[in-house]
Amino acid sequence: MHVRVNAATSVDGKLSTRERTQFAISGAEDFERVDELRADFDAVMVGVGTVLADDPSLTLKDADLAAARAEREESPHPARVVADSQARTPTDASVLGPDADTYVLVSENAPDSRVRELERAGAHCVVAGNNRVALPDALAKLESQGVERVMVEGGGELLFSLFADNLVDALSIFVGSMVVGGRDAPTLVDGEGFTDDFPRLDLTDVERLDDGVLLTYDVLGRNGGD
Amino acid sequence: MHVRVNAATSVDGKLSTRERTQFAISGAEDFERVDELRADFDAVMVGVGTVLADDPSLTLKDADLAAARAEREESPHPARVVADSQARTPTDASVLGPDADTYVLVSENAPDSRVRELERAGAHCVVAGNNRVALPDALAKLESQGVERVMVEGGGELLFSLFADNLVDALSIFVGSMVVGGRDAPTLVDGEGFTDDFPRLDLTDVERLDDGVLLTYDVLGRNGGD
Ligand SMILES: NC(=O)c1ccc[n+]([C@@H]2O[C@H](COP(=O)([O-])OP(=O)(O)OC[C@H]3O[C@@H](n4cnc5c(N)ncnc54)[C@H](OP(=O)(O)O)[C@@H]3O)[C@@H](O)[C@H]2O)c1
Ligand SMILES: NC(=O)c1ccc[n+]([C@@H]2O[C@H](COP(=O)([O-])OP(=O)(O)OC[C@H]3O[C@@H](n4cnc5c(N)ncnc54)[C@H](OP(=O)(O)O)[C@@H]3O)[C@@H](O)[C@H]2O)c1
Repeated sequence: MHVRVNAATSVDGKLSTRERTQFAISGAEDFERVDELRADFDAVMVGVGTVLADDPSLTLKDADLAAARAEREESPHPARVVADSQARTPTDASVLGPDADTYVLVSENAPDSRVRELERAGAHCVVAGNNRVALPDALAKLESQGVERVMVEGGGELLFSLFADNLVDALSIFVGSMVVGGRDAPTLVDGEGFTDDFPRLDLTDVERLDDGVLLTYDVLGRNGGD
Repeated sequence: MHVRVNAATSVDGKLSTRERTQFAISGAEDFERVDELRADFDAVMVGVGTVLADDPSLTLKDADLAAARAEREESPHPARVVADSQARTPTDASVLGPDADTYVLVSENAPDSRVRELERAGAHCVVAGNNRVALPDALAKLESQGVERVMVEGGGELLFSLFADNLVDALSIFVGSMVVGGRDAPTLVDGEGFTDDFPRLDLTDVERLDDGVLLTYDVLGRNGGD
């Protein structure tokens, strides 16, 4: 399984404001780049916090990219994956729209009725973990269903768990030229946080894009590589 | 008054861990750059949160830089400035050490006894604001005492207030190649946070340094420049 994180932050590392309202961090060049990147993956993944805050559809915006995938005998759009321990994804969420497959990763604790509702709404539910989605197990189950390359778009809670479990292979961040601030605003990596043995990265590329900069890293892992 | 912010963050915008423990974000090249940058300013400023967490001395490490300042008939080290509304800076703090002048910005509400103790320990106390230091007023008072160029090193609470008051002219951030994470870890800009009308920046330089990247910006201000 190859896991690539891609997100956009302000210069101070914020994914959104403290009110979790969306605003344009990047511009047209980055928008196009992200669409092309998505087209190169089997699936695009977010946490349920992002579904509830932004209601993204996670499909390709450029019809040519979808057509090119179809020509390669792939699904026109990558699948969508939501990490959602309690099956809180609303049945009318855009991420359950008809254009692509959707996997909802749930825990054993998720209410049966909600899991059934999501499946009726077209989702494939994958069970892993007791109270919270066990990500290593969940990703292994996705891989056994043919999902070998996953692009993760956030948010900060999901990303912390992925880094804590050493599951991230590469990371790209568009750093927008604005300050958001806020001790309670979501950042690129939230969760409990590391206090030592920080995940180390190798900066592989620096590119100016729109009015900001795109930083690309390989992840060496904790203990400087494992 | 010219105000330049310089700080180091992880890729996820953190100034330190959630435990506020210091760790090396940058390396030898950045360390040298920061020392040279400090030498070019009349004063180096931090919030009292940083004094209490890190006990920095904020003096020049390279004796040649101090000697060059002395040759230009400047003080060997830039002055130190601490924003400290309640005069909480400990009298044995390194920032009150004998190598340089120290201004402690306090509010009218600061206990008289503490202000007197700080002055006995060698500090110049500057009063501005009722309960919290009024930064526009405090910086104007510093300027009238000959402090025309200030470099601010953090932390995130002080930086938010400086941006909210439109006082920052330029910003440089060394982005280190590690993930810190933590929804409670200090970030480059904390405080209440902006929800619209974000301070806008103009990216003027991108430079690889140590194992990370140095991003330099001019601040356009809120409303895209004022
Ligand atoms: N700028 C960007 O590029 C970008 C991209 C994405 C998101 N965002 C922003 O990020 C914010 C949302 O971020 P967020 O951190 O609150 O939410 P998130 O990371 O999208 O979702 C977090 C939720 O995922 C669920 N989850 C399931 N398994 C998990 C696991 N093993 N580890 C961690 N979480 C798990 C948890 O809820 P359960 O316990 O109920 O399962 C958790 O609360 C929004 O404001 C959104 O706009 C911005
Ligand atoms: N990586 C780096 O480059 C770097 C640099 C600096 C700091 N740091 C880290 O940052 C952390 C400290 O950051 P912090 O945000 O907690 O503290 P901070 O910004 O250094 O100090 C905040 C304090 O300054 C005082 N203050 C006075 N006037 C203010 C005003 N007008 N607006 C805001 N604050 C004002 C407030 O205390 P009163 O109300 O009592 O006055 C406030 O709590 C530490 O962990 C430190 O290691 C890292």
